Amino acid sequence: MPTPSGPPSDSLPDLDFCAELGQQLRVDSVVMSDRAGSGHPTSSMSAADLIAVLLGRHLRWDLQTPDDPHNDHLIFSKGHASPLYYAMLHAAGAIDEEELRTYRTLDSRLEGHPTPRMPPTDVATGSLGQGLPIGVGIALAGKELDRLPYRVWVLCGDSEMAEGSIWEAFQYAAWRGLDNLTAIIDVNRLGQTRETMLGHDVQAYADRAAAFGWHPIVVDGHDVQAIDAAYDHAAGVKGKPTVVVARTLKGRGVRAVEDQPGKHGKPLADAAAAVQELGGFRDLQVDVQRPDTDREPHRFTTTQHERPSYDVGSDGSTREAYGAALAWLGATREDVVALDGEVSNSTHADQFAKIAPERYFEMFIAEQQMAAAAVGLGTRDWIPFASTFGAFWARAYDFVRMAAVSRADLRLCGSHAGVSIGADGPSQMALEDMASLRAIHGSAVLHPSDANQVTSLMEQMADRSGISYLRVLRGKTTVRTPADETVRIGGSRTLAGSDEDEVTLIACGVTVDEAVKAADLLAAEGITARVIDCYSVKPIDEQAVRRAAGETSAIVTVEDHRAEGGLGDAVLEALAECADRPRVHKLAVGIMPTSGTPEELMRAAHIDARSIADAARSVCAEAGQRRG
Amino acid sequence: MPTPSGPPSDSLPDLDFCAELGQQLRVDSVVMSDRAGSGHPTSSMSAADLIAVLLGRHLRWDLQTPDDPHNDHLIFSKGHASPLYYAMLHAAGAIDEEELRTYRTLDSRLEGHPTPRMPPTDVATGSLGQGLPIGVGIALAGKELDRLPYRVWVLCGDSEMAEGSIWEAFQYAAWRGLDNLTAIIDVNRLGQTRETMLGHDVQAYADRAAAFGWHPIVVDGHDVQAIDAAYDHAAGVKGKPTVVVARTLKGRGVRAVEDQPGKHGKPLADAAAAVQELGGFRDLQVDVQRPDTDREPHRFTTTQHERPSYDVGSDGSTREAYGAALAWLGATREDVVALDGEVSNSTHADQFAKIAPERYFEMFIAEQQMAAAAVGLGTRDWIPFASTFGAFWARAYDFVRMAAVSRADLRLCGSHAGVSIGADGPSQMALEDMASLRAIHGSAVLHPSDANQVTSLMEQMADRSGISYLRVLRGKTTVRTPADETVRIGGSRTLAGSDEDEVTLIACGVTVDEAVKAADLLAAEGITARVIDCYSVKPIDEQAVRRAAGETSAIVTVEDHRAEGGLGDAVLEALAECADRPRVHKLAVGIMPTSGTPEELMRAAHIDARSIADAARSVCAEAGQRRG
Repeated sequence: MPTPSGPPSDSLPDLDFCAELGQQLRVDSVVMSDRAGSGHPTSSMSAADLIAVLLGRHLRWDLQTPDDPHNDHLIFSKGHASPLYYAMLHAAGAIDEEELRTYRTLDSRLEGHPTPRMPPTDVATGSLGQGLPIGVGIALAGKELDRLPYRVWVLCGDSEMAEGSIWEAFQYAAWRGLDNLTAIIDVNRLGQTRETMLGHDVQAYADRAAAFGWHPIVVDGHDVQAIDAAYDHAAGVKGKPTVVVARTLKGRGVRAVEDQPGKHGKPLADAAAAVQELGGFRDLQVDVQRPDTDREPHRFTTTQHERPSYDVGSDGSTREAYGAALAWLGATREDVVALDGEVSNSTHADQFAKIAPERYFEMFIAEQQMAAAAVGLGTRDWIPFASTFGAFWARAYDFVRMAAVSRADLRLCGSHAGVSIGADGPSQMALEDMASLRAIHGSAVLHPSDANQVTSLMEQMADRSGISYLRVLRGKTTVRTPADETVRIGGSRTLAGSDEDEVTLIACGVTVDEAVKAADLLAAEGITARVIDCYSVKPIDEQAVRRAAGETSAIVTVEDHRAEGGLGDAVLEALAECADRPRVHKLAVGIMPTSGTPEELMRAAHIDARSIADAARSVCAEAGQRRG
Repeated sequence: MPTPSGPPSDSLPDLDFCAELGQQLRVDSVVMSDRAGSGHPTSSMSAADLIAVLLGRHLRWDLQTPDDPHNDHLIFSKGHASPLYYAMLHAAGAIDEEELRTYRTLDSRLEGHPTPRMPPTDVATGSLGQGLPIGVGIALAGKELDRLPYRVWVLCGDSEMAEGSIWEAFQYAAWRGLDNLTAIIDVNRLGQTRETMLGHDVQAYADRAAAFGWHPIVVDGHDVQAIDAAYDHAAGVKGKPTVVVARTLKGRGVRAVEDQPGKHGKPLADAAAAVQELGGFRDLQVDVQRPDTDREPHRFTTTQHERPSYDVGSDGSTREAYGAALAWLGATREDVVALDGEVSNSTHADQFAKIAPERYFEMFIAEQQMAAAAVGLGTRDWIPFASTFGAFWARAYDFVRMAAVSRADLRLCGSHAGVSIGADGPSQMALEDMASLRAIHGSAVLHPSDANQVTSLMEQMADRSGISYLRVLRGKTTVRTPADETVRIGGSRTLAGSDEDEVTLIACGVTVDEAVKAADLLAAEGITARVIDCYSVKPIDEQAVRRAAGETSAIVTVEDHRAEGGLGDAVLEALAECADRPRVHKLAVGIMPTSGTPEELMRAAHIDARSIADAARSVCAEAGQRRG
């Protein structure tokens, strides 16, 4: 814990200082971008006064201990204004002159768009419309979990107000009454190529925000006094979040670019002249107010709760097992929290809600906000599990991609995987989820075939860094894994394997049952098949796959997922460097499914036991011919 | 062209008929769901009166010719109300009694959620929040392209108002002044597990819509007279879209479920009693009003425009080539339209805007609405090309997934692929795009290495069915493909190949230049390398890849993309069934990139010429050892 230190409110910089500081931030933004040969100086200049006043007189940050739970949070949702961000951190003493010169160069912490490599940055931004919903998550942590008075400030661009995710944030924050959250919209009128839809109509933004339940304050974004008053006012509004709608000029302060189209995202033509016009270099330093540190973050209590386990041979759905394991984790660990996209009786996240209602967040049908909230909660070291239908994680794919850039630890559960859901049809079937989530840097993609695997995998997910995805099934599968057997991320189970197996069937999830049935069909014909349950699709158990490739003369992979990017490709990757390996036949969903029963649809997609046996028979015959 | 037929407005069914029709729709919804053993009868019952009045007195549909350009369009954005949708089509004579019984069974057109397999359904729904933005696209086609007076009606659920994509639609439709669009919100208060954020606060929805520039009308959604007046009113509002905010009761008409929680998405417990309570079976048929057909759809004129071509050996960026080819297609084909996400000077879609401004749609920073609008425009047979940074297509991934279910023909361009963009950093780099888009059913994933390839591929994309994705580069590459050489989807180019090649380097996009440089480095050491430019990553040129596997002793794949699901996996898939193939070494981006120059970042990711040569040298040595 850092040394407590009260805010030096008597020594706050005055507004003249803030106005000068704004000019300094502009100068530094112009110079940084000029030196880098790229960047967004004009987008920085419009918001410079907004940030100068915030830094000088409102933000409470102990930059010596950026992880201090009492610190305020500031997110540049308009991440392209990174010159302004770094200029601000420079003024606050967190970046020295030398480092400032490294902007946008290799290995520099001052990346083109902010990332957490530069403390105290909570999350990476640069994909517009993400900072505000993530800020909602942090504000939620402050109010409902940490129960500390820190404030969350989010600087938004006006262009990003076109992103739907911003409005998911607006409605959710209002519904939760997050009065510890202040959004600042830098309405500089100009986007990358043209005027925004609303231009300088600041009242229209205010009206929208008000209709969504926020308290709007319209200000001239270059009037430091008005800005200061707005922030003061924001801190006093109770029961709802506040948005400061600031009318600004892009490129403010330099006539060659001020309020001019065609000046987005490039250095100024004459940086030296611009610096002069801005009044030259300054070296103002801000001693940022420290937060109150007398209150400890809230901690929840844990309770006894039996670890879920299931009898081998029993039937159950892995989504029910998700709910049970989540409830167990929630009961026995006070840091685990859960979010769900208004399908908690389908994903069974409602089991957690029953046991730990204070740590359960209903996110409604807003998957982007759900992913963002999970990232936000994670910045405060809470351990979020977020669930919806696997198909609908596609809605938040850009948020998951950016979560990886944020080095966030995120645990996602996608239920209703594949055609085996049956009658609801293709809109509800996750068929591309493993492909899209395998491609995320540092991710794990887990697709357990039975309930006991779920418990073990979730236990490991809770403590795993990076993005972890658990894919679960609507229907029941047979428990084959003993509750006390080791199940690990990166592992697999070999069923019915022997040294004399002719063919290996590699499956995951629902297709494990089918592969076992196929092995029985084949056994009746005298063909011995090894079945590998690759419940960990990424990382895949390379050793088991390679051993099978060495020991059997053919491999059939089968998955309730598209042929591209899923289990089959993971198996091929594991074998890529092996020069001598048998042929691999991939079975996957190559059709556009319709409604039907699970059995009918798995048959139609050729991923059922009969199709697996047919494929195995055929590859064995060919392998036999080659050998013969 | 269908026979013109005026609307029989004098013979419109009266409101008592509509009320009875509403009950019939409820009865049929209850019975269909009961028979299927699944479905969403209560979500259908809330909207039955809204749909009865629409069908009886407002919709103009020639169901004999569902493709008639004059027809109105109706989208069930709340696709789970499919029982109501099919019951309505039954009343309109498009589905007979026998087919109605097939609901949710294999091969039936009456899928769990509507798809275009059942005419006149324009698009698949079932992923909430998509119907309205797609409706915006159709309304845009009606107003700006077809220039016909058809109306677009979209039935929304209140739960899906939480989706940000709905608000992208609201703001864009208002900005475009789409007064041919009417949204109907079925505010039945109850979601799947609980009350929505706004419950029955219909005024809050109206206020939000008004703030977003729509004309709201609040009605009692079970008062057929009020509904009728609202639809009449909607048709008369000029310059802005109208939303009918209807207060309804979920499960309306059956006490056991009406306005009750816990009744979502399941058949009624006692269907027979419910039918009785609803007044028993009816067999009302509606002779739906036909549209006016006297006006032909607008057609644009074409102009002479030279096909872009580039000299071999010249340098240029494939994104510039995208803009040039798009302008050429736009000039020479009147059916091609373009959309861009406010980065048109980066993607170079602005070239199209200059040549065909009436067919260019600026979609601002709202990728979901952009994808949806493209789908909507496509339903009216316009040929949309939509562009943004490849990274930001992740934002619209669920829309692309659903577009495949809609059997939409969609042409997407993603620029700024990979780490080779340089200083802007990872938030702007497309690194997962090929993986996610390869997994889409029926997709093509194209990643040309030079400008001439772009022209040829785009020409084919224009006439290709399904989802086509073109990945282009920020930086310049060397033109190697002669302008008159055949470049085809599914093809590849073999550079510097001979029968004596020891190793094959397979590349695409920016890594082709690197692979060529690597081949030169290797040649200097006496190692002969074949280079294959796999500009078509899906479908991949299996023949060329397999030939290389047969003729060379090792393969190195290299891509500016994640290792999972991209070029390397496509190559492995092409070789999966080959028992004898050399080892494949995949080079891909395994790091989390930062800022830097393109050269530095490609080096850091080990996808530059030196890394390729190193890998090739190493695999050749191993292959030699094995042979030796």
